[in-house]
Amino acid sequence: MYVEMKIVRSVREMQRMSESLRNTGKIISFVPTMGYFHEGHLSLMREGRKRGDCLMVSIYVNPTQFGPGEDFERYPRDFERDRNLADGVGVDVIFSPDDREMYPEYYQTNVNVERVTQNLCGLSRPGHFRGVTTVCAKLFNSVKPHVTIFGKKDFQQFVTIKRMVQDLNMDLEVVGMPTVREADGIAMSSRNVYLKAHERESALSLSRSLKMAKGMYEKGERNARNILEAVKKFIEEHPYTRIDYVKICDTTTLEDVDHLQGETVLALAVRIDKTRLIDNYVFGDVLDI
Amino acid sequence: MYVEMKIVRSVREMQRMSESLRNTGKIISFVPTMGYFHEGHLSLMREGRKRGDCLMVSIYVNPTQFGPGEDFERYPRDFERDRNLADGVGVDVIFSPDDREMYPEYYQTNVNVERVTQNLCGLSRPGHFRGVTTVCAKLFNSVKPHVTIFGKKDFQQFVTIKRMVQDLNMDLEVVGMPTVREADGIAMSSRNVYLKAHERESALSLSRSLKMAKGMYEKGERNARNILEAVKKFIEEHPYTRIDYVKICDTTTLEDVDHLQGETVLALAVRIDKTRLIDNYVFGDVLDI
Repeated sequence: MYVEMKIVRSVREMQRMSESLRNTGKIISFVPTMGYFHEGHLSLMREGRKRGDCLMVSIYVNPTQFGPGEDFERYPRDFERDRNLADGVGVDVIFSPDDREMYPEYYQTNVNVERVTQNLCGLSRPGHFRGVTTVCAKLFNSVKPHVTIFGKKDFQQFVTIKRMVQDLNMDLEVVGMPTVREADGIAMSSRNVYLKAHERESALSLSRSLKMAKGMYEKGERNARNILEAVKKFIEEHPYTRIDYVKICDTTTLEDVDHLQGETVLALAVRIDKTRLIDNYVFGDVLDI
Repeated sequence: MYVEMKIVRSVREMQRMSESLRNTGKIISFVPTMGYFHEGHLSLMREGRKRGDCLMVSIYVNPTQFGPGEDFERYPRDFERDRNLADGVGVDVIFSPDDREMYPEYYQTNVNVERVTQNLCGLSRPGHFRGVTTVCAKLFNSVKPHVTIFGKKDFQQFVTIKRMVQDLNMDLEVVGMPTVREADGIAMSSRNVYLKAHERESALSLSRSLKMAKGMYEKGERNARNILEAVKKFIEEHPYTRIDYVKICDTTTLEDVDHLQGETVLALAVRIDKTRLIDNYVFGDVLDI
């Protein structure tokens, strides 16, 4: 029997639906998104499809994780396209509340993960991760999933959500999935639509620099500074690029390291004209470019 | 069949127990406490007993809600006495984790309710409510209750927890219960054991001043300043008293009001030598003194 995908707009309705599914022994998997789906999102949904009896996807462009002057207003949105794509990969429920449902009058609560949100994107986007953790706490309490799937392209977000879930004793498994890339190697992102044709070659410098760093690592380089300097030089040779950060961090604490030991990640954020792109590589992992 | 009360120390075990109870349709009620039970705590448990199939009580003296120089170390503790009292009112499970279980290595997350925590006790106890909301979020995620019972003696705490639950979409009913008083009118508090014999008469000034304010209200007084001045004067006439605050606030926003309209609360905190006591009266409510 084919059951039509449902669209839920209210927190209360979402909770009632999830609660009754849980009470009949169903496993709920959940992919929180800001919509405008690409292959990266769809890969998370396919994983969620495998891991749960019921696959819930939220679409909500959360205002509180955008800073002043960031791209909240122009962030790409296309609900009908998203609905069709979600239906195509077997999503059961799209949860898509509006701002009044999420942040009504008197709203005044936030969830804050401290240390792992300070470095990297936290340096240039103060308040961003507080917005992310707060909205995810709200979404988790609405959808009541057993398992939630995040992309590792947003590596710091993934680490931060895992931290919140563990610290607040949320009874929830957080799964991280590998970055999905376009044919030329650029990490999939809803923000790639901002790139103009002449900027794409420069945008390629991010993933190519990761590949270069991987090569250095495989030849035995363990000095963080040597890798960082090579990466920065490589990116800066491309026009329109402006480096926000290039760092090598411990994957648990996200603190900078001088020497590559334990699990470490090369993380970078680069502006191509007005478009801010991020990418990362965990040393020792595969990198399909 | 008599089932013995259980003591649970681990978050994981608590979650597994609650999850399986929920899956068999049981309603879980929950009273979070710092132990050293008095009649106030027991009244919350009796209400919880009525409202749930399974009554869970946590005992955890949470270090993060005590400020530097406050009474964390000397806060009274007596687990065996608490265990017997809980058993006597029909508690099913005592959840009593230790600090390592609650705040392990790398712990770094907090939940913060903003505006309603700024006034009253928030003025002299910065960080206190952040500690309370964070530990309650953790306890709620561990015990997974349908309903939780708080005492209104800690009025600002009650308002703050309700705000957090609503703002973060926790699927949980928060019930507030009236203050239980000793025979002479002093609000029950674990901290009353700190009072020396000669300080008790001064401690009575709190509840007696509430009664006086109630009398003024019932005679038609609606000017906040007139009531506040009478209350302060009354308390200050007692030896050993040092007023921390005496305020009249809107019960939703906890902002000061000049005029008594809508639902308002007279809240006060007074030090009797080293012992800080609080009490409150919602205008129009009964006051059994």
